[in-house]
Amino acid sequence: MGEPSGEVFWVKYHFKTDQGVKCLTAEDAARLAGIDLGHHQRDLLHALDCGDYPSWTMKLQIIPAADAARYRFKPFDVTKVWPHRDYPLRTIGRLVLNRNPENHFAEVEQAAFNPAHFVPGMGPSPDKMLQGRLLFYDDAQRYRLGANYMQLPINQPRRVPVHNYGRDGAMRSGDNGGREKNYNPNSFGGPEQTGRPLWAPLEMPGLSGNFPPEHHREDNDFVQAGNLYRLMNEAEKQRLITNICASLSQVSSDDVIRRSLAHFQNADPDYGDRLARAIHDTRTLPKKASFLTLGESFEETSSGAALEAEKDLQAMRIKAN
Amino acid sequence: MGEPSGEVFWVKYHFKTDQGVKCLTAEDAARLAGIDLGHHQRDLLHALDCGDYPSWTMKLQIIPAADAARYRFKPFDVTKVWPHRDYPLRTIGRLVLNRNPENHFAEVEQAAFNPAHFVPGMGPSPDKMLQGRLLFYDDAQRYRLGANYMQLPINQPRRVPVHNYGRDGAMRSGDNGGREKNYNPNSFGGPEQTGRPLWAPLEMPGLSGNFPPEHHREDNDFVQAGNLYRLMNEAEKQRLITNICASLSQVSSDDVIRRSLAHFQNADPDYGDRLARAIHDTRTLPKKASFLTLGESFEETSSGAALEAEKDLQAMRIKAN
Amino acid sequence: MGEPSGEVFWVKYHFKTDQGVKCLTAEDAARLAGIDLGHHQRDLLHALDCGDYPSWTMKLQIIPAADAARYRFKPFDVTKVWPHRDYPLRTIGRLVLNRNPENHFAEVEQAAFNPAHFVPGMGPSPDKMLQGRLLFYDDAQRYRLGANYMQLPINQPRRVPVHNYGRDGAMRSGDNGGREKNYNPNSFGGPEQTGRPLWAPLEMPGLSGNFPPEHHREDNDFVQAGNLYRLMNEAEKQRLITNICASLSQVSSDDVIRRSLAHFQNADPDYGDRLARAIHDTRTLPKKASFLTLGESFEETSSGAALEAEKDLQAMRIKAN
Amino acid sequence: MGEPSGEVFWVKYHFKTDQGVKCLTAEDAARLAGIDLGHHQRDLLHALDCGDYPSWTMKLQIIPAADAARYRFKPFDVTKVWPHRDYPLRTIGRLVLNRNPENHFAEVEQAAFNPAHFVPGMGPSPDKMLQGRLLFYDDAQRYRLGANYMQLPINQPRRVPVHNYGRDGAMRSGDNGGREKNYNPNSFGGPEQTGRPLWAPLEMPGLSGNFPPEHHREDNDFVQAGNLYRLMNEAEKQRLITNICASLSQVSSDDVIRRSLAHFQNADPDYGDRLARAIHDTRTLPKKASFLTLGESFEETSSGAALEAEKDLQAMRIKAN
Repeated sequence: MGEPSGEVFWVKYHFKTDQGVKCLTAEDAARLAGIDLGHHQRDLLHALDCGDYPSWTMKLQIIPAADAARYRFKPFDVTKVWPHRDYPLRTIGRLVLNRNPENHFAEVEQAAFNPAHFVPGMGPSPDKMLQGRLLFYDDAQRYRLGANYMQLPINQPRRVPVHNYGRDGAMRSGDNGGREKNYNPNSFGGPEQTGRPLWAPLEMPGLSGNFPPEHHREDNDFVQAGNLYRLMNEAEKQRLITNICASLSQVSSDDVIRRSLAHFQNADPDYGDRLARAIHDTRTLPKKASFLTLGESFEETSSGAALEAEKDLQAMRIKAN
Repeated sequence: MGEPSGEVFWVKYHFKTDQGVKCLTAEDAARLAGIDLGHHQRDLLHALDCGDYPSWTMKLQIIPAADAARYRFKPFDVTKVWPHRDYPLRTIGRLVLNRNPENHFAEVEQAAFNPAHFVPGMGPSPDKMLQGRLLFYDDAQRYRLGANYMQLPINQPRRVPVHNYGRDGAMRSGDNGGREKNYNPNSFGGPEQTGRPLWAPLEMPGLSGNFPPEHHREDNDFVQAGNLYRLMNEAEKQRLITNICASLSQVSSDDVIRRSLAHFQNADPDYGDRLARAIHDTRTLPKKASFLTLGESFEETSSGAALEAEKDLQAMRIKAN
Repeated sequence: MGEPSGEVFWVKYHFKTDQGVKCLTAEDAARLAGIDLGHHQRDLLHALDCGDYPSWTMKLQIIPAADAARYRFKPFDVTKVWPHRDYPLRTIGRLVLNRNPENHFAEVEQAAFNPAHFVPGMGPSPDKMLQGRLLFYDDAQRYRLGANYMQLPINQPRRVPVHNYGRDGAMRSGDNGGREKNYNPNSFGGPEQTGRPLWAPLEMPGLSGNFPPEHHREDNDFVQAGNLYRLMNEAEKQRLITNICASLSQVSSDDVIRRSLAHFQNADPDYGDRLARAIHDTRTLPKKASFLTLGESFEETSSGAALEAEKDLQAMRIKAN
Repeated sequence: MGEPSGEVFWVKYHFKTDQGVKCLTAEDAARLAGIDLGHHQRDLLHALDCGDYPSWTMKLQIIPAADAARYRFKPFDVTKVWPHRDYPLRTIGRLVLNRNPENHFAEVEQAAFNPAHFVPGMGPSPDKMLQGRLLFYDDAQRYRLGANYMQLPINQPRRVPVHNYGRDGAMRSGDNGGREKNYNPNSFGGPEQTGRPLWAPLEMPGLSGNFPPEHHREDNDFVQAGNLYRLMNEAEKQRLITNICASLSQVSSDDVIRRSLAHFQNADPDYGDRLARAIHDTRTLPKKASFLTLGESFEETSSGAALEAEKDLQAMRIKAN
């Protein structure tokens, strides 16, 4: 590993299926689920056992840290697409699933993923979901598996002995450090901290407990959702409306349905109206969602995101066909 | 391992110290405890580190099962000595402590002893304490350490792979059986039960929840305790009385003290009387315990146990000096 | 509660649905499961919320303990029907479900049933499944919920204060006994054992670890299963064969299928043959099961069980229609 | 509670014993410990049972937040005294212990203190020990007692029903929220967040993972320690040297002893020299600590802290005599 240059980039990871995308209609899904609830898992299980390995091409979008701060919308919102026109996908590698677990409990139920575990040179973005998860995953794993879950074979570093001062706790396997000292610093050659930062620091917002909204000129919760809808062809739109209606029409409170419809209306008036009509057909709610307003103001922007999303959707269709 | 003959013997284990026995007076013990509460452990720790290994000679007393049923007193009472005249000690081997633990937590705090773990050919006696412990130890270890405590290095069989159908549970280390089947019988070569009894069976007393007292002609709770007292020299008796008095005189209820004194009185009238006088000197209880009676009737028997205990005590004294 | 007479009876409980019995065909079940996997629970949930309370008539079959020992087949085998001709059903009461849980976690997930919990006057039979469960349920609950699971509201005795010497443990709620002594006997008015047996004792079989088969003249694992098959009409038989074939034909090992078919053959040759043909139609196994033999010998007995089972099945059909 | 003014003050709490301070010599302590290891607890237990209630006068030192930033030394270092001359003690109230626990397990072993639990209007200081403990205590309690430890009677808010969305978890007692919704916001009158800050915010240091030392002109780790030593009379100094020597002389590594002596030398040359001589008398180390140097540079300041500490120590002596 060379000396780090100190330059900081934000990265969005993409794993693009090499299998293509095909979807079940709601009817087919219901029929399959009644016969074999685990048909997707069984399909994967058999494919792997037969040597038919699924793979995903790994791609990155890379933004210099300085650009992110003045990008036209806030880039650390997990619900947002980064338009490929602005930041093209770069192919990095390929993820291949090439065997089934030997033992489901040992290798699946005991597996403990944790987004706070980084290799040197990588660190977390200020994405709020991620920042919360940096703490929550570790807490959840300790609750679910036990304090020493990182000692379990599936969670251990592979072939790299660990040198730290962690000791004891429930079901501590191994030699628990043997005769090595369990304090630091010590005079017996114990592991030393490097003192080097694990990753580039984030700028803190000034005061604790204070989250001044960081404004980017095109921040908006509805444009990208509307763009996706607008890119669909008529048959896709119809299936989407039918599927959403199947769930939403079962909600017991009319008020909750009304407030939900407003979100779809904000994404695209046609989207909201059609959903309102579909729900009207099973319930006695008004056919139009247009009378709905949200407290939150927003404005539509015909941003590049729409075009970008279109390209992605087209690519997806081509592959799947 | 030869074919078992089917003969059954009851065995009492003795680990006789090769270091001799020396005791601290209460005064010396208090002084040492104030300076170094763990002086005994530290003594052992340093002895082991210096290669001064303590050892115990292992001896057995062996009773043919048929003899036990008609022995003069019930032999499966943990509080009883088996007179060496009736069943002499046979030297079998030597237990040597030859190293300190490498890691206190891994090898001491996680160690889980269990009297229900036997090697083939050995099994439990009907001693009630043991019968209860056959269940309690396992329960306690699961509560204290976790369901998979037998997977921890200190509790694993050494160098012998385990073939059973135990799977899963909190902090299951290892491969959890890998692809082997976890049910029995199976058609994939899984381990089979031998069908052979693990140990000789015990006779059951006829009805569940019913414990008809098994009578042996010399059963008595006090004779052996009195014999031990009677074998002591005057200085030993005095120290014993002083030590018991130090604890018993602190009991808040006179009634509890009176009932306790009756037990000592039953063991030996002199024992009870001297203890009663000693307690009187710190409290306002009557000086004599002779007025005390216990509901339980008993008779003194000048059994061989007294003589046997004498020999043991003499031997202990000789070794210690 | 009067003084117990000391007479002992074995009892088999029956909860007979007041709703009648209706079954889904495999096709209907698959269709429903695809649409709403929890349709049975939802049906019950809504019925209870609407005041349409399901109920079951509770009936008992009662055998004097002395009769059980010499009954024509072993009565403590959970797979056996007690013929109603020998021991008629007596109506005792009615079980009504009259509300949904207020909180699923508190009242369903934390509920801990335990067959070892009896009210005075009742005790366990020597049924082996039950005898094992007397220990396993308690162990499972402690592992699943914690050592103090009986303190949780759903598992507490209702409105009856508990007086025992249980103390401490993880998440012990309440006052943990306050200033009361936690040892017994004590001089401070703590609860005393009654000394009365909790239930009538069972006869033990003589030697521990030894399970001499208790022989009754008509013991047989296949007659009642065959009787049930023989009572079915042609349509019922056909659906049964189809459903069993759907599962059994998926087994990977021909040998396991062969050994399974032998069991059906032993119950009724027609049962085995039809199942063998059905499996042959999806796999390449022989069409007839008649060549199959089991190591275990048995003989068919045209016992009253067949007639009895017929009556039950007829009754079930009448109710359901 | 009035409307908060928004002014922020830092507060140091003092609980001054109303019993006075008396110390045991090392010899007396060893003697007592040998006889009754829990003599201090027993003394408190008996005093409370006899109505002899110990009390502590509660006093505050209060610094306006703005002053703290430019105080002559860093005030949020737990090892530092705030000179009473600068910030006088203000008497606020009295803490009285007026009963023993009813049940040791329920009220002591299950008690879970947590410095992150504040009443409105109070919040944590940037003291690093405290900031770490805000997280660690909660983690430790969950590990030690279980996820629902705040449901235990000793840890519950007293007489104040709790309205939050916490649900489920091991050994959840109570009704677990009954039929109330467990998500927020909801349309069923569930509890709402106030949106008001729980406490005044802290200024963040700019970049995450970056702890630029905050410099105050008199920051020094040794002056206050030296001042305390210099205030002692000769007998006090002698006992202090003897007690430290008793522990430090047992350290196996000469190098560790040398580095420890340097700290005492930095606090006061006499302190270091006398300790070095005392250790020399039991080991073969040089008699003088003056040759020792620490990498860390520091300078003595004759700050007001010395005078202040003197007053405190004098007051302590007067009270104790």
